[in-house]
Amino acid sequence: MRKIILDCDPGHDDAVAILLAAGHPDIELLGLTTVGGNHTIDHVTRNAQQVLTVAGLTDVPVFRGVTRPLLNDVITAEDIHGDTGMEIHGFDLPEPAVPVGEIGAVQWIVDTLMREEPGTVTLVPTGPLTNIALAARLEPRIVSRVREVVLMGGAYGAGNYSPSAEFNIAVDPEAAAIVFGEDWPVVMVGLDLTHQALATPEVQDRFRTLGTASGDFLAALVDAFRANYKDAQGFDNPPVHDPCAVAYVIDPSIVETVSVPVSVELAGTLTRGRTVADLRAFGAALASGVPGGGAAADPACNTSVATRLDVDRFWDLVVDAVERLG
Amino acid sequence: MRKIILDCDPGHDDAVAILLAAGHPDIELLGLTTVGGNHTIDHVTRNAQQVLTVAGLTDVPVFRGVTRPLLNDVITAEDIHGDTGMEIHGFDLPEPAVPVGEIGAVQWIVDTLMREEPGTVTLVPTGPLTNIALAARLEPRIVSRVREVVLMGGAYGAGNYSPSAEFNIAVDPEAAAIVFGEDWPVVMVGLDLTHQALATPEVQDRFRTLGTASGDFLAALVDAFRANYKDAQGFDNPPVHDPCAVAYVIDPSIVETVSVPVSVELAGTLTRGRTVADLRAFGAALASGVPGGGAAADPACNTSVATRLDVDRFWDLVVDAVERLG
Amino acid sequence: MRKIILDCDPGHDDAVAILLAAGHPDIELLGLTTVGGNHTIDHVTRNAQQVLTVAGLTDVPVFRGVTRPLLNDVITAEDIHGDTGMEIHGFDLPEPAVPVGEIGAVQWIVDTLMREEPGTVTLVPTGPLTNIALAARLEPRIVSRVREVVLMGGAYGAGNYSPSAEFNIAVDPEAAAIVFGEDWPVVMVGLDLTHQALATPEVQDRFRTLGTASGDFLAALVDAFRANYKDAQGFDNPPVHDPCAVAYVIDPSIVETVSVPVSVELAGTLTRGRTVADLRAFGAALASGVPGGGAAADPACNTSVATRLDVDRFWDLVVDAVERLG
Amino acid sequence: MRKIILDCDPGHDDAVAILLAAGHPDIELLGLTTVGGNHTIDHVTRNAQQVLTVAGLTDVPVFRGVTRPLLNDVITAEDIHGDTGMEIHGFDLPEPAVPVGEIGAVQWIVDTLMREEPGTVTLVPTGPLTNIALAARLEPRIVSRVREVVLMGGAYGAGNYSPSAEFNIAVDPEAAAIVFGEDWPVVMVGLDLTHQALATPEVQDRFRTLGTASGDFLAALVDAFRANYKDAQGFDNPPVHDPCAVAYVIDPSIVETVSVPVSVELAGTLTRGRTVADLRAFGAALASGVPGGGAAADPACNTSVATRLDVDRFWDLVVDAVERLG
Repeated sequence: MRKIILDCDPGHDDAVAILLAAGHPDIELLGLTTVGGNHTIDHVTRNAQQVLTVAGLTDVPVFRGVTRPLLNDVITAEDIHGDTGMEIHGFDLPEPAVPVGEIGAVQWIVDTLMREEPGTVTLVPTGPLTNIALAARLEPRIVSRVREVVLMGGAYGAGNYSPSAEFNIAVDPEAAAIVFGEDWPVVMVGLDLTHQALATPEVQDRFRTLGTASGDFLAALVDAFRANYKDAQGFDNPPVHDPCAVAYVIDPSIVETVSVPVSVELAGTLTRGRTVADLRAFGAALASGVPGGGAAADPACNTSVATRLDVDRFWDLVVDAVERLG
Repeated sequence: MRKIILDCDPGHDDAVAILLAAGHPDIELLGLTTVGGNHTIDHVTRNAQQVLTVAGLTDVPVFRGVTRPLLNDVITAEDIHGDTGMEIHGFDLPEPAVPVGEIGAVQWIVDTLMREEPGTVTLVPTGPLTNIALAARLEPRIVSRVREVVLMGGAYGAGNYSPSAEFNIAVDPEAAAIVFGEDWPVVMVGLDLTHQALATPEVQDRFRTLGTASGDFLAALVDAFRANYKDAQGFDNPPVHDPCAVAYVIDPSIVETVSVPVSVELAGTLTRGRTVADLRAFGAALASGVPGGGAAADPACNTSVATRLDVDRFWDLVVDAVERLG
Repeated sequence: MRKIILDCDPGHDDAVAILLAAGHPDIELLGLTTVGGNHTIDHVTRNAQQVLTVAGLTDVPVFRGVTRPLLNDVITAEDIHGDTGMEIHGFDLPEPAVPVGEIGAVQWIVDTLMREEPGTVTLVPTGPLTNIALAARLEPRIVSRVREVVLMGGAYGAGNYSPSAEFNIAVDPEAAAIVFGEDWPVVMVGLDLTHQALATPEVQDRFRTLGTASGDFLAALVDAFRANYKDAQGFDNPPVHDPCAVAYVIDPSIVETVSVPVSVELAGTLTRGRTVADLRAFGAALASGVPGGGAAADPACNTSVATRLDVDRFWDLVVDAVERLG
Repeated sequence: MRKIILDCDPGHDDAVAILLAAGHPDIELLGLTTVGGNHTIDHVTRNAQQVLTVAGLTDVPVFRGVTRPLLNDVITAEDIHGDTGMEIHGFDLPEPAVPVGEIGAVQWIVDTLMREEPGTVTLVPTGPLTNIALAARLEPRIVSRVREVVLMGGAYGAGNYSPSAEFNIAVDPEAAAIVFGEDWPVVMVGLDLTHQALATPEVQDRFRTLGTASGDFLAALVDAFRANYKDAQGFDNPPVHDPCAVAYVIDPSIVETVSVPVSVELAGTLTRGRTVADLRAFGAALASGVPGGGAAADPACNTSVATRLDVDRFWDLVVDAVERLG
């Protein structure tokens, strides 16, 4: 049983991550915190409430995070997530039946980590890292109390926001630099991995066949996501990024990783927001694509990057968790 | 018959490039120009003279290039190329029997391009791009007269000088930015490709079996290069970068390329000298490694990057050319 | 009567600022918050407590701030402030007789600003701007509630930490960029102004003549500060930076300012941490030194820089306030 | 008798520099080289020819320089210099009666410096530094042969192209970095100095009173320049930058300088093109404006910046030289 805090910006793929985390028996979802990213903080917070409402998850606490990146202006992704940040044509999302907590997300994260046993809580950020970075600066003692940070974001290959940078990191590179620079274990589940998690029509069929509210919701959601991703980036099937991070927490054997130093470029004219992973030790293996094998992990290195997804087991995990939600 | 100017910094792998260019019947090698890189201008110029002398190529003119990068301090690679820039234990290089031209490399490049028919001369730089950049600034009319620039340098994956940057570009990023920014066709034959051109013992046997001075020279050269690459970067067999660019000129079907915009990062703290290739159009294909297929080339894009080498045909080309040298 | 929060890193000159703020009848000192800068957070917090104890100011609340800059590593200034951050040879500072508040400085700043009438509280940061930046990001509503931010830091002329950057800004440039970028009035009291506030032997005599604990403390403090500043930067008399910001709050007529845009350079190789003030409108006046007169203030510009100090009235203000402390 | 090469981009104030250099008996003007800056290379070269023609200086050789900066795109200053780069309403410039040399400016600079006695030729660049930088990279031996580089450009105070950068440096910062970084003496005559050289109506009267072609030309030129500078930057009288550098060569006692390290910022987001002078040694003197006195020159420092102009003697020098031209 792994305790997690899911810090997210729903977002279609965040919704899948929420249902996976809430539905899987090995995860104890302590709470959802929201952060501006795929859309503004108002939209993503409402979207988080609606996802929980659809799935009947009315006991998961929600906390509203900060409104803007540390230094960048607000950046959102309507091209991918629509006008509301989680637009789904032909599916009416319900009015939120779950409340938003009184205190802010950053304070709640700090309080939770200082209250829970050290080494028991995993942070799973799937949006920009502003909340997490602020928590680490406000209360540095949380760093040694966190078990692991498993984040969706970054890329050692091509970006999506720019040739060099992935969206979540590009939105708040300074926050990302703080998170990657702290002395906790960080697993970067980036585009290199998540572009393997494509939601095909077969996957949708599996959701639809469940015959549940959550299943119908996800089937409709993938339709909307596919259309947007096709228009914006030419994908035939949309990559469902965020649940990959949750899947790694549930079962690390589904996601291959390599342990390499990762830093965030803040100053580049073309590369601002790039997650610079030092893959040089993997030498010629890189030429054939995904690195792996060969190079021994440096035990002193506290960052790793995800490289290869066991696609079938990943979707089994997701479908199974959604099925349990009923 | 393709006319080329080989602008190089020998350098073990430059030597292979020289012999390939000089030995192949489809190449007319107008001249060698040297540039500081693998070692200082004095060393690499002498090395160029010695390679030509070993192979009996006493009619290839050599011109000495500039002594230092535009802005960086001089950077050399003794870890890979030894104290002389082309150290070969157990093989005595002869005293140079070919002279160095009176005029400087930059002026000779300009003069040659202004003299030859427009569209007939290909530039093949295999070292830092300082000479080429200076020529383009001194005489901008050369740009439209060059057929193509086929350069060894850069990487869209991992670098070797730093996690982000390949050596030739890292040594003089400003020169690289000038070359990639000019309006001539540029083919980047980077580490992504050249790390596939590994000189195995089998390749060495083929050189040795030739029973010629050039063959013996290359067999010994690969021994030295292998030892250095093993110590410095852990390679079992050394990547022989520079002849890949020459091979592309001889037969483009040996080297797959994709046409994408490439720019050079000059300002990054972690990424200075990175060749930023916009591979986003290749979407999910990237997750499986080398991009290719799918995305249509943008006809307005004058830069491309090399992705996949036909290894067998590459070595056949090299061995065949060396054999012809006698 | 102006309510202020003094956010400081004592530091010799911070001590003068504290006594000026506490002693002047026009200032209501709501509390001291501390921030790492002249020394670590542990040292500067203890120093703040000791200064208040020396002066008998046992009812001023103290709150401990964050331990490190947003992105930079911790930087301190022992060359100027000694091993403890406020070393004074020949003067024994008492054990602290004032406590440190339970909650952190950032939270206390937020709570105080949300509690007090909007437009009544002035922030006076005299150290790195980390606390203030974090408060603005955690609770954006404070921005419109603050009356004014009057900060000691920056320079439009020469820096002191580097040729381009002043110490407080150089320690946490990202925090400074946040503070200068928010939509509240910011008055930058930088080195251009504070290098005019030199503590001469005559000033020391005035402190000594008071015959009070605070007067004796300041006289000894200036001796120590003078010796350090002479060794480190060649000043005959040390510039007493921080009370200049407090003096401006008490009586703006003592400090001339011009209203110009100010931004913080984050990316420069030589200029990181520079406060870039756009003084172009002052044209030829600049050639004769301090700008002023001529250019009309842009009413839309919410930043201004201090240019000229009325030195005599400044010291009268300080000595008078210290005298009142008894 | 000082031999100089005037590397310029006329430009109204360049014209004054040309006439001062050509008319003063202590200067031997070896030649004019042109560089794109105030306008394109075509315009400034024609303007240079026309200025020489007006003044009857038909024996000064002119060489055309490079067409564009090393990395920046072409930037020109029509707001200050009009559509032709030296527009003068009400004054008809003659068709050029002086030719442009066969070889390019960079090659001519190299040849001249290699031919003349070492230590005898002073370079006086009054535009972007592209030609000079290229010459230094093409033929590094020129560096030790140059007597001194006295350049108009840069600012340690406010810029004019941006808050941080002066126009000549901003147009080609990389070239400037090369020039300031070489091991020759560099005197930076920047805006701090040249904003003191204001062409008043009294100065114009002195030109007009000469009753010569050159005098009439300059009187008309100042009218045009004044109007442009008033519109663009609010000056009542235009600063005549470029002749200040020539004046320093003729008589250094007219221009106070301080010897300080100067480097050029290339990477800054706000400060690209800033000439970063380390004025920290001048401490409190800076607060009162122009530095000077006090700090001893570092004999190892090969860069200095101009601080204060003897305005009366400067104009006497200019008027006297123009009078000699007849």
